[in-house]
Amino acid sequence: MQRKIVLIGCGVVGQGFLEILVKKKELLANKFDFEPVLVGVADMMKGSILAQDGIDIPAFLEHVKAKGTVHDFPVESAIVGLNSIDILKQAEADIMVEVTYTDIKTGEPASSHIRTAFEKGMCVATTNKGPITLHFKELVDLAKKNNVLFKYEGVVMSGTPIFDLLDYCLAVNDIHEIKGILNGTTNFMLTKMEDENMSYQDALALAQKLGYAEADPTADVEGFDALAKVIILSNVVLGGSLKPSDAKERIGISGITIEDIQKAKSEGMRYKLIGSTKLENGQIIASVKPVKLPLSDPLAGVGGAVNALTFKTDLSGDITILGPGAGKLETGFAIMIDVINMHQEM
Amino acid sequence: MQRKIVLIGCGVVGQGFLEILVKKKELLANKFDFEPVLVGVADMMKGSILAQDGIDIPAFLEHVKAKGTVHDFPVESAIVGLNSIDILKQAEADIMVEVTYTDIKTGEPASSHIRTAFEKGMCVATTNKGPITLHFKELVDLAKKNNVLFKYEGVVMSGTPIFDLLDYCLAVNDIHEIKGILNGTTNFMLTKMEDENMSYQDALALAQKLGYAEADPTADVEGFDALAKVIILSNVVLGGSLKPSDAKERIGISGITIEDIQKAKSEGMRYKLIGSTKLENGQIIASVKPVKLPLSDPLAGVGGAVNALTFKTDLSGDITILGPGAGKLETGFAIMIDVINMHQEM
Repeated sequence: MQRKIVLIGCGVVGQGFLEILVKKKELLANKFDFEPVLVGVADMMKGSILAQDGIDIPAFLEHVKAKGTVHDFPVESAIVGLNSIDILKQAEADIMVEVTYTDIKTGEPASSHIRTAFEKGMCVATTNKGPITLHFKELVDLAKKNNVLFKYEGVVMSGTPIFDLLDYCLAVNDIHEIKGILNGTTNFMLTKMEDENMSYQDALALAQKLGYAEADPTADVEGFDALAKVIILSNVVLGGSLKPSDAKERIGISGITIEDIQKAKSEGMRYKLIGSTKLENGQIIASVKPVKLPLSDPLAGVGGAVNALTFKTDLSGDITILGPGAGKLETGFAIMIDVINMHQEM
Repeated sequence: MQRKIVLIGCGVVGQGFLEILVKKKELLANKFDFEPVLVGVADMMKGSILAQDGIDIPAFLEHVKAKGTVHDFPVESAIVGLNSIDILKQAEADIMVEVTYTDIKTGEPASSHIRTAFEKGMCVATTNKGPITLHFKELVDLAKKNNVLFKYEGVVMSGTPIFDLLDYCLAVNDIHEIKGILNGTTNFMLTKMEDENMSYQDALALAQKLGYAEADPTADVEGFDALAKVIILSNVVLGGSLKPSDAKERIGISGITIEDIQKAKSEGMRYKLIGSTKLENGQIIASVKPVKLPLSDPLAGVGGAVNALTFKTDLSGDITILGPGAGKLETGFAIMIDVINMHQEM
């Protein structure tokens, strides 16, 4: 079955998704009866193209990789130069894929893209933390009102299953607490500090050199990135309406010294930057802070840039999932699984 | 929507499932539009009852717990004393829940129950390793032929999601290797030997005292239990047709001494009984054996009676899930999630 897709954002994640569509074309057709038709692409830096009859995906992907542009991909009767909102207004699509750059303060332009798509009757798959952190309830209601589906597996731990795990595999359970390692950069640094006796500064420099940490590492090392994910989990899974400023604590790892880590090690413990949220007496308590874990805690064994979450459930006990929290194919996969699940449910 | 259920096997798992139906009655009705009607129960030791108009589940559960019998639960116009196959032949049910005792050598009586249910047009949820180990392909084909659903989430790691994780959350991925800790008893023993310097014999005695290990611990300590799960994963996930005797190796932990464990510890390594299966040059290589893992391996951090599996995927990297591998509610939940997913898909 053909499904028309409009792609807003054609950076790493958008291209990762298109790569999977190319790589898995036969499997998607044979196993899922899914045939993607790409009808439009808009990217703030690379330009836009609208072609209702469909864009040749492998050729387009090659073009974008070679030239870094979208608008000049040759398609007969294509319309170029529209802005992203006009692309959405004019595109006849079943699904919008929203993978623009995350602005955690305004949620824009992603939130406007999502609202426009819903009003046009499109289902939406996104990996953009902005809209989910800031406008989750409004957007869920708007999707319902327009009778469309809304999926966002990639906003926490990229393609490692979190929301699908809860919805499809752990439904019926009551989840009362979630805690985990939600920032790969800081986990990488803590692992290096413990295993190789590296100082905080050296570990940070290495993380920057390897591309894990930004030139300004504040969002990672001070816990803001992990906190955004904790707020999303609080609102999506525990039913809260929290803003980041509602968190009880947000403490990063910049105060952790190699002496702290070695002392913990000598006690059979290990420091991890733990994001957690729990329901207590009807209130949601969310926090991010370094925690000294006993080595018997499954989260203590999570090394390197890996992410992990433990869900405390009433029927299934403690369920922990570990996996990548970033990556081109990994995050592209988050869109892929959302699209395939929506395809089967729409 | 009413769904008629016939329950074959009313031991720990069957009662765990019924407990969840009682505990979650409102959630099941409101969130999933699911109203269970229990039309029949058969248990080899406790007797049987067939009551097409439905059995009061909370009262029945109380009766079974108090008296240890099924056939004398008072229901007007109930038929008692039928054997399990006749119950299935006469019951008008949408779903059979098969949770009889596992016989890994013959797969009976579970396999006959499942065949009979399929031929009667019932969907089947089971936690019974016997039929899945011995007759997986035949049963999948028979389900297809009869246009019914067949789910078995609980046969590996009880209610911790494995097959649902792959089907609903990691679909589109190519899985080429699976490895994990599939026996809680031996993992508990290895953890005690390392953490408390306990001898193999003392650790085994403790596991027996706590009810983790049987009086005859062979199935656990010699790796037979883990191997059955490896064979299931080989056949269900990797598409093989292996019998347990096709495994490359099956080595248990009875040869592991406290000296081995302490030596590994001094090298920064840890012994785990690892079950693994992988596709190599078109061949499936399955094994169970003690492996010295670096502490950076997510499986090294799995302590106590917890189970864990790592899936090596082509798009999502390494995904590891940890959770209980046994337990009344945990295994009852495996049936619950199968039943709810079938309810939504039938």
